[in-house]
Amino acid sequence: MTRIRKIVLTEDEMPRQWYNLAADVKCPPFMSPDGPVPPEAWESVFPMNLVEQEYSTQRWVDIPEEILNLLTRWRPAPMHRAYDLEKALGTPAKIYYKNESLSPAGSHKPNTAVAQAWYNKQFGTKKLTTETGAGQWGSALSFACSLVGLECKVFMVRISFDQKPFRQLMMQTWGGECVASPSTETQAGRAILEKTPDTPGSLGIAISEAIEAAVTDPSGTTKYSLGSVLNHVMMHQTIIGLEAKKQLEKVGEKLPDVIIGCAGGGSNFAGLAFPFTLDKINGAEIDIIPVEPVSCPTLTQAPYVYDHGDTAKMTPLVAMHSLGHGFVPPPIHAGGLRYHGMSPLVSRAVEDGLMAPRSIHQLECYKAGVLFAKTEGIIPAPETTHAIAAAIQEANKAKEEGKEKVILFNFSGHGLMDLVGYDKYFKGELSDHEFPIDEIAKNHEVLKGYPKP
Amino acid sequence: MTRIRKIVLTEDEMPRQWYNLAADVKCPPFMSPDGPVPPEAWESVFPMNLVEQEYSTQRWVDIPEEILNLLTRWRPAPMHRAYDLEKALGTPAKIYYKNESLSPAGSHKPNTAVAQAWYNKQFGTKKLTTETGAGQWGSALSFACSLVGLECKVFMVRISFDQKPFRQLMMQTWGGECVASPSTETQAGRAILEKTPDTPGSLGIAISEAIEAAVTDPSGTTKYSLGSVLNHVMMHQTIIGLEAKKQLEKVGEKLPDVIIGCAGGGSNFAGLAFPFTLDKINGAEIDIIPVEPVSCPTLTQAPYVYDHGDTAKMTPLVAMHSLGHGFVPPPIHAGGLRYHGMSPLVSRAVEDGLMAPRSIHQLECYKAGVLFAKTEGIIPAPETTHAIAAAIQEANKAKEEGKEKVILFNFSGHGLMDLVGYDKYFKGELSDHEFPIDEIAKNHEVLKGYPKP
Repeated sequence: MTRIRKIVLTEDEMPRQWYNLAADVKCPPFMSPDGPVPPEAWESVFPMNLVEQEYSTQRWVDIPEEILNLLTRWRPAPMHRAYDLEKALGTPAKIYYKNESLSPAGSHKPNTAVAQAWYNKQFGTKKLTTETGAGQWGSALSFACSLVGLECKVFMVRISFDQKPFRQLMMQTWGGECVASPSTETQAGRAILEKTPDTPGSLGIAISEAIEAAVTDPSGTTKYSLGSVLNHVMMHQTIIGLEAKKQLEKVGEKLPDVIIGCAGGGSNFAGLAFPFTLDKINGAEIDIIPVEPVSCPTLTQAPYVYDHGDTAKMTPLVAMHSLGHGFVPPPIHAGGLRYHGMSPLVSRAVEDGLMAPRSIHQLECYKAGVLFAKTEGIIPAPETTHAIAAAIQEANKAKEEGKEKVILFNFSGHGLMDLVGYDKYFKGELSDHEFPIDEIAKNHEVLKGYPKP
Repeated sequence: MTRIRKIVLTEDEMPRQWYNLAADVKCPPFMSPDGPVPPEAWESVFPMNLVEQEYSTQRWVDIPEEILNLLTRWRPAPMHRAYDLEKALGTPAKIYYKNESLSPAGSHKPNTAVAQAWYNKQFGTKKLTTETGAGQWGSALSFACSLVGLECKVFMVRISFDQKPFRQLMMQTWGGECVASPSTETQAGRAILEKTPDTPGSLGIAISEAIEAAVTDPSGTTKYSLGSVLNHVMMHQTIIGLEAKKQLEKVGEKLPDVIIGCAGGGSNFAGLAFPFTLDKINGAEIDIIPVEPVSCPTLTQAPYVYDHGDTAKMTPLVAMHSLGHGFVPPPIHAGGLRYHGMSPLVSRAVEDGLMAPRSIHQLECYKAGVLFAKTEGIIPAPETTHAIAAAIQEANKAKEEGKEKVILFNFSGHGLMDLVGYDKYFKGELSDHEFPIDEIAKNHEVLKGYPKP
């Protein structure tokens, strides 16, 4: 073979430690009306072994052998050189992508799902509750719970629940239970349904419901699990970037010039980007770009504030970019990017100038997704098309500049469960909307008495 | 890591030649009323470079570099050791499976789709027509056509078209056009709709329509493509078994004791089994088991005869096991196994005692599929569950006998587009039916004047 398209690692070459960016980027603490929130305060929500990780500032954390064993069901994940996308663009740039779509659930989400399920199992948890946007996370946690032997209950944002009936069937096949959110099963859900019975739902609402379902379970053995945002989740995902480094080395590449990932809560982006962020902190020149929809522009438009992670204000205050916990994003098909907040570590790194966020319109993203499917072959998830669109922008820029840049993006998931969005795109039923920028100020009214990070 | 779960190959280790079983197993020729069908007779249907392959008895055929390059989008495919399935069964057997579900279309079908698309492109073809059962083949050919730059038209068996709307959207995303069969677009389709307007359709009918659409195109640049049955298709799939051999070697295994694949037209089964069939011909002791549904028992119940490959009798006579070209299999969810005939090479190898076919009921297969999803993690296609069910039978037999057998099966595809079947299974809406054995004799009435193979 004259050229290598797919760079693989053996199981022996898998990273044995996660990288924790909290060692190198300092986030303000979680806050409550009584001041900083101590680890113990999370006891009813998360198992203490994961709370410990959440607060840890240790740079490298060993991956337990049993978690490695769970990960080998699909990891290490291949990295591809996008020769045919490059050719279609006529760019001198070299485009690589890390393929996270090959997990049984179809995305990067199982990387933290199996870790969280395993730590919970160790701790004595019997059942996990969670929320899901597009359904990727709910599927991943159902998958992980079935492997380690936990029950799983998923609150799925209503708009996605209706758009993607097959997602529920996936969760069911792995033994998970899935309901549309807002639901009548929680106080938080009932309160929202009373005010807005036709709401499409949001991740913020679904998080409120999932936390309530966990903490109100009288057995005390039900915990809540979050698929993004939190530090320990970002850390579990860094296996993506750590594998990518070994793979770049295998084909003789130095550090990439550009790192790209789509960002809803931040986890797939962080997974690829954080290990390279350490290089940037240590002096390397890398453009690190989290990409979000114009219709939910958390990093590009919203201020860095203290806000709740959920709509019903069940979580403590988190220092992050936030559109306001009351913001309900429009029902775009990239359901995983419909979140008002953002990972505190990603938010802080953006504030520190380590990352340069970008927002892209829906139609440009679908166009990029179709070009990718017809050249590289894989149909991307609507979320993933945001990363592809940004990679194409960068490749075109490299063409204008005549530079042979190395661009690496995260192919976070396949779109086989999201084809209804493509259908609407082909039928011309999708359009772009400018974000009503006044909404941020309106939604930030209620944050006025909150501390400043 | 104490044990390797996933055995990977690099692109450099990919097989460079296909194995052609026609060198070692002798099939009677295609027949027409005028006697054996010469290669030229296929001219309006297939490009001559593929017809040449169809008639070839050369044992090893070089894979063109450009086809290898197309295959590297997802190949080499990993082979997994099913540690957790073994544990759940408590078997001393070692179970391996070749994972063909990681292709962009989700199954083994692209192995021959990219080869056929490439040979057609070389020959000057502009457009391919084909049929599809469950939708795996239609998706695969749309995918392949988009990569090499051909138009693609797919006739999809109506029952699957209705059960699996997302399959059409997949084909559309890759630029393929998909219609339900029988359609009003062909004479064959209209004739069947007139007689049986409510027919669920069948592969036999869809083949008739696709051939008619190709040969009646006045431009002469439209050809037909078949996703299974024919010798050249089987040969393109042998890359599966040839990779598997290298992978078994990597973990120090000798030849497996048992080889298993589900068989509709025979292609995924042949792909894994044919390279090992050569070992069996050369004296190795291997049980080679094609698995089919009880409701469509071509190899286990139907005689070895000359019959047409399609319902409208557009194909020449093929020497194969056949339930009769008029047979319309019941609308089971394993749409890819609903075919009245079988690969001539597989049929002949069964006649020669090289393979021992087996049929399994639907409910046992779904049960096996769910156990696999909950242990190994991947949700199998309904077709693939037949191979899993047989592997479980063999593992249980090894347990009874106390033997550490090596079982290798082909995981032909994932079930993410087929979850409606799982839903019905969970709701208790599926049942098993004995096959009405008299139907074979009835359907064979019309074959009475045909030659005998």
